[in-house]
Amino acid sequence: MLVGTVIGSLWSTRKDDKLNGWKFMVVKLTTGSGFVGRDSLVAADNAGAGVGDTVLVSVGEAARISAENTMVPIDAMIVGVVDSIEIEE
Amino acid sequence: MLVGTVIGSLWSTRKDDKLNGWKFMVVKLTTGSGFVGRDSLVAADNAGAGVGDTVLVSVGEAARISAENTMVPIDAMIVGVVDSIEIEE
Amino acid sequence: MLVGTVIGSLWSTRKDDKLNGWKFMVVKLTTGSGFVGRDSLVAADNAGAGVGDTVLVSVGEAARISAENTMVPIDAMIVGVVDSIEIEE
Amino acid sequence: MLVGTVIGSLWSTRKDDKLNGWKFMVVKLTTGSGFVGRDSLVAADNAGAGVGDTVLVSVGEAARISAENTMVPIDAMIVGVVDSIEIEE
Amino acid sequence: MLVGTVIGSLWSTRKDDKLNGWKFMVVKLTTGSGFVGRDSLVAADNAGAGVGDTVLVSVGEAARISAENTMVPIDAMIVGVVDSIEIEE
Repeated sequence: MLVGTVIGSLWSTRKDDKLNGWKFMVVKLTTGSGFVGRDSLVAADNAGAGVGDTVLVSVGEAARISAENTMVPIDAMIVGVVDSIEIEE
Repeated sequence: MLVGTVIGSLWSTRKDDKLNGWKFMVVKLTTGSGFVGRDSLVAADNAGAGVGDTVLVSVGEAARISAENTMVPIDAMIVGVVDSIEIEE
Repeated sequence: MLVGTVIGSLWSTRKDDKLNGWKFMVVKLTTGSGFVGRDSLVAADNAGAGVGDTVLVSVGEAARISAENTMVPIDAMIVGVVDSIEIEE
Repeated sequence: MLVGTVIGSLWSTRKDDKLNGWKFMVVKLTTGSGFVGRDSLVAADNAGAGVGDTVLVSVGEAARISAENTMVPIDAMIVGVVDSIEIEE
Repeated sequence: MLVGTVIGSLWSTRKDDKLNGWKFMVVKLTTGSGFVGRDSLVAADNAGAGVGDTVLVSVGEAARISAENTMVPIDAMIVGVVDSIEIEE
C-alpha cells in the first residue's frame, strides 16, 4: 500500500457514470522515509478522509475490493486514515 | 487514478481488431503538485475528451471495467473530464 | 498503453513452453512528449510489427486478452503498429 | 517480488473494516544491488516479521493469494523473512 | 516482460508455505539499451536459470500462469533463459 497526504479534491461532471457517488481526493505520496517514485495520485475515498489527513491507499483490484463493487472503474482507494507511523531506522 | 492533459491523438490501422472503434489519446501526466513518474501514456477515451482537456485516467483492469468489455486489450482509459482540482497544500 | 519503437528481437530456447510460437520484440519506450519512466521492455507481437516500427503496447492482463489465451505467461503485447501521432501541445 | 527492510509500523483506526486484524509494516526497499525505484511501501505481514528484518514482499493479487482471502483490500504482503541473499556480481 | 541478469539467490525459511519448493533468484534489470527504471527484483525460477544467465521475467498474474498455480503468492517469474538479443538501433 502507499501512504500520502490528502492535499485536495477533484471534481468531474462529464465522467463514466459508474463513478457516480465517489469522492475523489488528490493524495501527495509521502517522501523521505516514506514513499517516493510517484508524486501524487487521485484516489476514491472509502475512509472518510479530509484534506490534511495522512492516508493509506490500496491500488489496483484491491481498490475495487474495498469498494465491494467489481464494476466500478477505480484503481486507487483510500482505505484508511493513518493514526500514526512509527519509524525505527 | 492519474490526472493529465490530452495533448494529442494516435492512429493505428494495423492493430488487434478487438481495439476497433476506440479513440486513442495521448495524455501528458500532470507534474508539479500533480502526477510525476511517467511522462505520458496512451488511453482510450470513454468520456468524450478532446485535446487540451484535463482528464482522469484509470489503468489496468479498471480500464476494461469502464469499457464494460472484459475482452478489449486496453490498459488505460479516460474515465472523466476534470471540471476542477482544488489543492490546499 | 505505452508507445515505443521496436529496436530488436529476443530469442529464448530454454523457456516456459506455453510461450512457444510467440515472437519477442525489444521495444524502446518513446521519450520527449512520449513515454518516459521505463527505458524499454520486451513485448510479444500481435500486430506483425518489425524493427523500426512505432508500436502501441498493452501491459498486464490486457496482453493476454489480446492473445485470446489466458494461459500464456505474457505481460506485454504489441497490439498495434502506429500510423501517426498528432501532438498539439 | 521486492526485497526491503522493515523500518516501522503503521496504525489506522478509521479504516475499511475488511483490513481488521492485519499488522501494517513500513518496508524500505533495498537499494544498491537490491531494489530501487520506489523508496518504501506499506505491507501487511504474513511472515511474523519485525523491525530490522529483511523481508520478501509480493504485490498485487499475489498479496491477497498469500492472505488466502480475495476480499481483503491489500495490495502488498510480506511473504517471507529473508535468511540470506547471496550476490555473485 | 523484463530482461535482466541473474546476480544471486535468496533464501527464506520463515515464509508463506505456499512458496515452498520455489527457487528465488535476484535479477538485476538490464540498463543501457535494455530495461531501466527498477534496479532489481526477486523472481521465482521456471526456466532452470543460473547466476550469470540473461533471463526473461514476466510479472503480475503472468507469473502465476507460468507456475500453473493460481494459489502461489508469486508476482515475478523467470520464464526463459535468453539465447540472444539482437538490437538494430
